[in-house]
Amino acid sequence: MASNAIVVEQLRWRKFPVLDDGFVCLVDVMGDDSAIVQAARVSYGTGTKKVSDDRTLIRYLMRHHHTTPFEMAEVKLLVRVPMDIWRQWIRHRTASVNEYSTRYSIAIDTAHQTAPDMWRKQSTMNRQGSEGFLDEQTGAELSREERELQEHALRVYQHRLELGVAREQARKDLPLSTYTEAYWKIDLHNLLHFLELRMDRHAQWEIAEYAKVIGNEIVAPLFPMTWEAFVDY
Amino acid sequence: MASNAIVVEQLRWRKFPVLDDGFVCLVDVMGDDSAIVQAARVSYGTGTKKVSDDRTLIRYLMRHHHTTPFEMAEVKLLVRVPMDIWRQWIRHRTASVNEYSTRYSIAIDTAHQTAPDMWRKQSTMNRQGSEGFLDEQTGAELSREERELQEHALRVYQHRLELGVAREQARKDLPLSTYTEAYWKIDLHNLLHFLELRMDRHAQWEIAEYAKVIGNEIVAPLFPMTWEAFVDY
Amino acid sequence: MASNAIVVEQLRWRKFPVLDDGFVCLVDVMGDDSAIVQAARVSYGTGTKKVSDDRTLIRYLMRHHHTTPFEMAEVKLLVRVPMDIWRQWIRHRTASVNEYSTRYSIAIDTAHQTAPDMWRKQSTMNRQGSEGFLDEQTGAELSREERELQEHALRVYQHRLELGVAREQARKDLPLSTYTEAYWKIDLHNLLHFLELRMDRHAQWEIAEYAKVIGNEIVAPLFPMTWEAFVDY
Amino acid sequence: MASNAIVVEQLRWRKFPVLDDGFVCLVDVMGDDSAIVQAARVSYGTGTKKVSDDRTLIRYLMRHHHTTPFEMAEVKLLVRVPMDIWRQWIRHRTASVNEYSTRYSIAIDTAHQTAPDMWRKQSTMNRQGSEGFLDEQTGAELSREERELQEHALRVYQHRLELGVAREQARKDLPLSTYTEAYWKIDLHNLLHFLELRMDRHAQWEIAEYAKVIGNEIVAPLFPMTWEAFVDY
Repeated sequence: MASNAIVVEQLRWRKFPVLDDGFVCLVDVMGDDSAIVQAARVSYGTGTKKVSDDRTLIRYLMRHHHTTPFEMAEVKLLVRVPMDIWRQWIRHRTASVNEYSTRYSIAIDTAHQTAPDMWRKQSTMNRQGSEGFLDEQTGAELSREERELQEHALRVYQHRLELGVAREQARKDLPLSTYTEAYWKIDLHNLLHFLELRMDRHAQWEIAEYAKVIGNEIVAPLFPMTWEAFVDY
Repeated sequence: MASNAIVVEQLRWRKFPVLDDGFVCLVDVMGDDSAIVQAARVSYGTGTKKVSDDRTLIRYLMRHHHTTPFEMAEVKLLVRVPMDIWRQWIRHRTASVNEYSTRYSIAIDTAHQTAPDMWRKQSTMNRQGSEGFLDEQTGAELSREERELQEHALRVYQHRLELGVAREQARKDLPLSTYTEAYWKIDLHNLLHFLELRMDRHAQWEIAEYAKVIGNEIVAPLFPMTWEAFVDY
Repeated sequence: MASNAIVVEQLRWRKFPVLDDGFVCLVDVMGDDSAIVQAARVSYGTGTKKVSDDRTLIRYLMRHHHTTPFEMAEVKLLVRVPMDIWRQWIRHRTASVNEYSTRYSIAIDTAHQTAPDMWRKQSTMNRQGSEGFLDEQTGAELSREERELQEHALRVYQHRLELGVAREQARKDLPLSTYTEAYWKIDLHNLLHFLELRMDRHAQWEIAEYAKVIGNEIVAPLFPMTWEAFVDY
Repeated sequence: MASNAIVVEQLRWRKFPVLDDGFVCLVDVMGDDSAIVQAARVSYGTGTKKVSDDRTLIRYLMRHHHTTPFEMAEVKLLVRVPMDIWRQWIRHRTASVNEYSTRYSIAIDTAHQTAPDMWRKQSTMNRQGSEGFLDEQTGAELSREERELQEHALRVYQHRLELGVAREQARKDLPLSTYTEAYWKIDLHNLLHFLELRMDRHAQWEIAEYAKVIGNEIVAPLFPMTWEAFVDY
């Protein structure tokens, strides 16, 4: 039985909220810290027996970028994410994905709404970044405008469906903020790489929110030694 | 010199229009039909010398799913595509991609507009498909509604930029029909697999339009023997 | 709890012998038939509810090459294989691998020995195949020659180690028949593709022996509906 | 016309010798330094125009691990390598490979022979490494032993072929030092990652010899700005 079996049972299907209507939840996991150690010992052989304990070996692997043992663990999540964030997410090509299909089904009828105090200012230093927030009065105006636009887009979508337009075509003008859902399955090495990039201070705030929850609420309890080593290096 | 050198020079950077404001164009190519034959002969050895000519060998490879020689050719395209179509496109994970970034730059200000006679009806037989068209009067109404919605979305986007909202956040309610551009580089085996799926009658009409142009206008002249074999099997 | 939990417990670490000194065994598995169904239903949406049961849906997915749901299950094996067979095995690039390292550790001291009645004749029809067997008298001579050569190679290897040659160099003249071990982790879609190619009658006999054991002894009980559909199509 | 067109013509098919009977040679290349810049400018947008020249931009991309533009160049090599080195080489799964098949054809009849002064001592500090050399007298004995073993293995192989054993089986006891040949095609990002690992002082000497030749003789002249940035960071 995996050393993390109890943690797994507690975590599975528990939805951690992210943003106003998103979530991440663990669907399944293969392996634990000792599965990584197990694979490392076959590759690096009897020599690794000198490493007195699993924690030291995992830190050694992480520090020296011996990444293949971390591929021996696998994590499957169900996530609910605005499409514009999902567009960034799936640039990571090493995962398996089954996304909610708006050809087969009617689109999820919520879109991510930005709160009045959360409109970020364009950074002048960093062309792809933001810094600070607009004042709340301007923010309130922007949030109202957003709500109107999203409602307009939803009305048009529903009107098309009522008139019999094919779902695959009716969806074409939905806002990028529309939520989607997907199963996302990835090995631990590639998941850590994703988290490294997306928890970085240069990452967009929204995806960083997802990355932090995945890291702190899911990976940390499932792989405590690996997570400790990851955070340290 | 590659056997297709003249064709390459004629094709490079020539923009083939697709949809109302999209295009595909060849940026670069590595290899030709004989590069595939060359690789096959090292793998399948002296035995392949019995195959009297390149055309016969290529047909043999295609028929028997000997796919690795087709990986030895590579095609790089520049494409301009509505984002909802691009969402389907990049499910194909084996390609390299550099997409136009709306974090760094202001979004492309055109969105795909559906003509009055091009609104497709939801298929009743196939949940993910369409069949036939709505009447033109209804179509005209839908096209007008679409234009209004796209203009509304663009005004909101521009208003946000004027107020200093970060580009990465300002874009969040753009319609999925907004055009994006990307360099897309893929080996010939995986490109043919993409074309097989996306030229299929179950593919969405819009992406099939791209697939047909890539196949007929670019792959066919660059790799005439391979294309002939692909079409036949 | 996964529907195959009991089967998993019975299978894990059970070594199924293959060839004279090889084996395959299940180390871990993520998912079961219903995990595939689960992922399919998010992708293909509410429409799939009409498919009355899981078995019918899995057969539908298999028949129509809807492969991504099968990526949602993952299998990890420990295998012991002659290196020349392993060379074929790892052409399948979509798996994660941790192989026993003969840089860190002394090589496994057994090599695959062919029995006197198992020397196959070169096919005259198929340049890459075999047909029938040599007579046993000739076979006995070949098996004796093989044993002498393998012993010779092992003596040279051990002599080098005694003289202090680095393991990474000492191994260089070991016969390709030398056994190696590896953890091999792969998703179910890619595993089925491996089995399809390697259980084929054109596959080399030795790797087909491994493929049959993996398929019949491990995949079949873990994923009974998927296996049934795979065998039928 | 690519900026490196003349260099390409001079390099193509020129065999750079490695080890006693190996080589690497450039078969084809797609792209040059400016192809990387071109792709970066579409991703990172108008902001990159501030970067005054290509060299500065390439150094910026390399320093900040913006790796996708380097995927936009592709290199195809023909290599001749001992099989034990090739076993390490193809752990890099992101390349396309067509290897010489010893099922279809008779194996290459040369094996890598180690010179008397090139037998390395096992490192006592690093379990997977070597340090210094054995004395030449011992080395001479080892080289003689190696030659005898390789001749023995070749006689057995030829005897099997004479008796009609299938090639796929006859090869099974060839020494790992036997040369193989392969077309190997990989994008520049992944090639640089390969070179980084294999030119490292912890890499095995033999594969480092190949990596150095690929880097210095082929990548450096084809992509001078990229190579300079790679060496500096």
